[in-house]
Amino acid sequence: MGEDAKAATGKETFHVDKVGSFSEWYNRIVREAELIDDRYNVKGFIVYRPWAMTSLKLIYRAYEEALERHGHLPVLFPTVIPEENFVKEAEHVEGFKAEVFWVTHGADEKLEKRLALRPTSETAFYQMYALWVRSYTDLPLKFYQSCTVFRHETKATKPLLRGREFPWIEAHDAFATNKEAQKQVIEDKEMAEEVLHRQLGLPFLFFRRPQWDKFKGAVDTYAADSLMPDGKLNQVVSTHMLGDNFARAFEIMYATREGARRYVSQTCYGPGISRILAALISIHGDDDGLVLPIAVAPIQVVIIPIRGKEDENPSILQLSQDAADRLRQAGFRVELDLTEETPGAKYYFWEMRGVPFRLEVGAKEVSGGYLTLFRRDTRRRTRVHLEGLPEHLSEAGREMLKDLRRKAEQQLSFELAEASNLEGLVLQLARSHGIVKVPFCSIEMAGEACAQKIRERTGAEVRGVIFPEEEKPSPGSRCIVCDRAAGHIVYVAEAY
Amino acid sequence: MGEDAKAATGKETFHVDKVGSFSEWYNRIVREAELIDDRYNVKGFIVYRPWAMTSLKLIYRAYEEALERHGHLPVLFPTVIPEENFVKEAEHVEGFKAEVFWVTHGADEKLEKRLALRPTSETAFYQMYALWVRSYTDLPLKFYQSCTVFRHETKATKPLLRGREFPWIEAHDAFATNKEAQKQVIEDKEMAEEVLHRQLGLPFLFFRRPQWDKFKGAVDTYAADSLMPDGKLNQVVSTHMLGDNFARAFEIMYATREGARRYVSQTCYGPGISRILAALISIHGDDDGLVLPIAVAPIQVVIIPIRGKEDENPSILQLSQDAADRLRQAGFRVELDLTEETPGAKYYFWEMRGVPFRLEVGAKEVSGGYLTLFRRDTRRRTRVHLEGLPEHLSEAGREMLKDLRRKAEQQLSFELAEASNLEGLVLQLARSHGIVKVPFCSIEMAGEACAQKIRERTGAEVRGVIFPEEEKPSPGSRCIVCDRAAGHIVYVAEAY
Repeated sequence: MGEDAKAATGKETFHVDKVGSFSEWYNRIVREAELIDDRYNVKGFIVYRPWAMTSLKLIYRAYEEALERHGHLPVLFPTVIPEENFVKEAEHVEGFKAEVFWVTHGADEKLEKRLALRPTSETAFYQMYALWVRSYTDLPLKFYQSCTVFRHETKATKPLLRGREFPWIEAHDAFATNKEAQKQVIEDKEMAEEVLHRQLGLPFLFFRRPQWDKFKGAVDTYAADSLMPDGKLNQVVSTHMLGDNFARAFEIMYATREGARRYVSQTCYGPGISRILAALISIHGDDDGLVLPIAVAPIQVVIIPIRGKEDENPSILQLSQDAADRLRQAGFRVELDLTEETPGAKYYFWEMRGVPFRLEVGAKEVSGGYLTLFRRDTRRRTRVHLEGLPEHLSEAGREMLKDLRRKAEQQLSFELAEASNLEGLVLQLARSHGIVKVPFCSIEMAGEACAQKIRERTGAEVRGVIFPEEEKPSPGSRCIVCDRAAGHIVYVAEAY
Repeated sequence: MGEDAKAATGKETFHVDKVGSFSEWYNRIVREAELIDDRYNVKGFIVYRPWAMTSLKLIYRAYEEALERHGHLPVLFPTVIPEENFVKEAEHVEGFKAEVFWVTHGADEKLEKRLALRPTSETAFYQMYALWVRSYTDLPLKFYQSCTVFRHETKATKPLLRGREFPWIEAHDAFATNKEAQKQVIEDKEMAEEVLHRQLGLPFLFFRRPQWDKFKGAVDTYAADSLMPDGKLNQVVSTHMLGDNFARAFEIMYATREGARRYVSQTCYGPGISRILAALISIHGDDDGLVLPIAVAPIQVVIIPIRGKEDENPSILQLSQDAADRLRQAGFRVELDLTEETPGAKYYFWEMRGVPFRLEVGAKEVSGGYLTLFRRDTRRRTRVHLEGLPEHLSEAGREMLKDLRRKAEQQLSFELAEASNLEGLVLQLARSHGIVKVPFCSIEMAGEACAQKIRERTGAEVRGVIFPEEEKPSPGSRCIVCDRAAGHIVYVAEAY
């Protein structure tokens, strides 16, 4: 606890206007809640401390379980990819070569071939898929790996949001037909809903990206964007329809039942585990620090015995211990805080870290036969009893998640606006509506120049069209930039 | 499944004399059971396929839970370590520099400083420990990370046993006193027992290594060795008493309660997750393939409906489905095999992959109101009922684990022999006793020349003394090499 425990003794406390000063809030909370440490001596590489890593592992597990429910199996590929693989898909190598770290030496010897630290693993997986896929009976192939990837970023890095090494999952699926691959994109969206929306209370918009913003090597890119408190979108998950682009480059073919030889159709899927944590922190947090839903809170319940200096009432400790035992037995992650700090300092310490529930146990509670339950997000206190405590807390956890989700959804719809011309867009963005829907000519390459003009004028990006239920522009509406007939309603926002 | 499914149709089957031809057995089973693929085009780097990766994840989880029960918290450090950190502990850099892969470029730019792909992470962790440790209240610090590490091996690689990138856990602990660090070594041994012995049925010998075989930078190295079927030892876990060697190199100091400044005492601990899987495969497997204990079997129960060509008895499918539902509901990992293969081909397929239990459901079972349970290790069939099936299988899983453990223990004691002179040692090793106890002069550096002579004569290594209950040589006994007074009973064996 170190420095922050000292802060908790009263010298300085965390209280920052999250919405008004989001950047300060974010930069302070990731450090002061001991989520990460960016004093590691390689630029853009950070250390994930236990409070972040425990949550990251819980997010990983939730996502891995969703992937496995949907028929994926785990694999692990080498971290290094030889240059010869990397250059096989022409567009892909163009897109990534500016960001690759190269391993060139083993001890003092130069390696026979340069090895890329994987920026993403299509070119590692698919040469093996070419060996593993023979017949239609081998399909679909649905494998994922949990790992870190490396990007020699030239943009400024930001903890959890942009770094030179970051934790993610990548799923690589191969199908007999394009139709099945297209169905997988929908399934990928559903998995994002199962994890982000249902378990973490994080709403998102799911887009088909414009052609100029797709993954290099893909036919189409789809992505889930979370809205951050500063009105910028955070791409937390992306999925790519690859068609047979990589299948042709890597010769991944199968024999149909009738004996014909066909290329597979592929998708790949990348939940950004640290970006999900960044969204979770930013969206649910408040001016006093983190607010973690129970699914990913490293500690779900902290129990604080309140003993006066003179008053070492053994019943207080007994009741605290009983509550801890019951909750642990029921599978809760519980901390019974017996350190020498004052109760106030302990409250502060665990509130800033976002522990969803606190049980306060003092003389009043012992004599009254109850415990005082404090809920982090509402800051409301209620009385609860030892009897049925785990059930009560499970229910309270569900309630809290529902409230956090509702609040986040309200915020998202509050920041969503519309405009029918460029001046209207500028105005809406200035009024701090983060996301503005506008009629737009085309999300094919033909529309890139218009998107470029929007970027120059507002700093915001054309993030794409809603998928799968794309909204259609009303008849006769025109692109807000070029005044051609509008082909789409696109969403415009700044982005991380 | 591809090629092997074809093999399963009867063209060729796996049957290899495990003990008589262990090397062939091992090299074939890791490929034919689709555990790994070593056709990846970078030497010494392999792909972990789903059947291995699922088990590796279960071993990881078991070990992480043990570490957390013993007070460790998860962290994640960068994969890259700058050269300046790496050279801080003189002995450490000497030990590892011949094995380091170097990252030298980001895109086309040369990096300011070379970055090592971590061969192990002491020099990454401890610079941060120097920032995190201030006072005795910050101690002990007990953090672990699950990751892969990289060694530019010059020795021949072998899947799961020796590779250029391999999955492991590393725990790094810092204490106020040497005594606490020494206690941690005992706790590290206990964790190995909890996971390897109790959950996986793998016995091991726990050694203090001779000084010439310690981790570079450590005061002492301790390790758990498993006995492989070819009589060679496989170091599956190691733990290192670091004393204050690294604390001095990285200036990790704390203020005592009285305000004095002291160096911390440290240990580090490395369960080799893929080496544990290699031991598990090799020790429990038999001539027909893998035998997996239920704790780490990707599929614990496979259900095979036996339908004649003409006889599409719907009750068979119904009973199979009911059994699957009940077992899944109780938390079992279940496969209901409805593929078009023959029952015999399915038996073969899942037996080779080591699935611990099979339920056979045919017309006989339906009319008799029972299911036939086949246990992989004993190959014995018994009748079981739908009622109470999960409880029955849990019990059968415990029985199987107990039997596997007992068999492995018997093998270990069978291969353990003694000798009182060099000729006796040679004779015992020739009689295929894998491990021979002998009186030996010294496991300090003074004994290295004698160990070298043993190596030259027999190819075997002095693996160390049993820890913590070291056996004492009988009075008057002499070192089998130099004839000086014996200071220790050491264990001699070949090693992976």
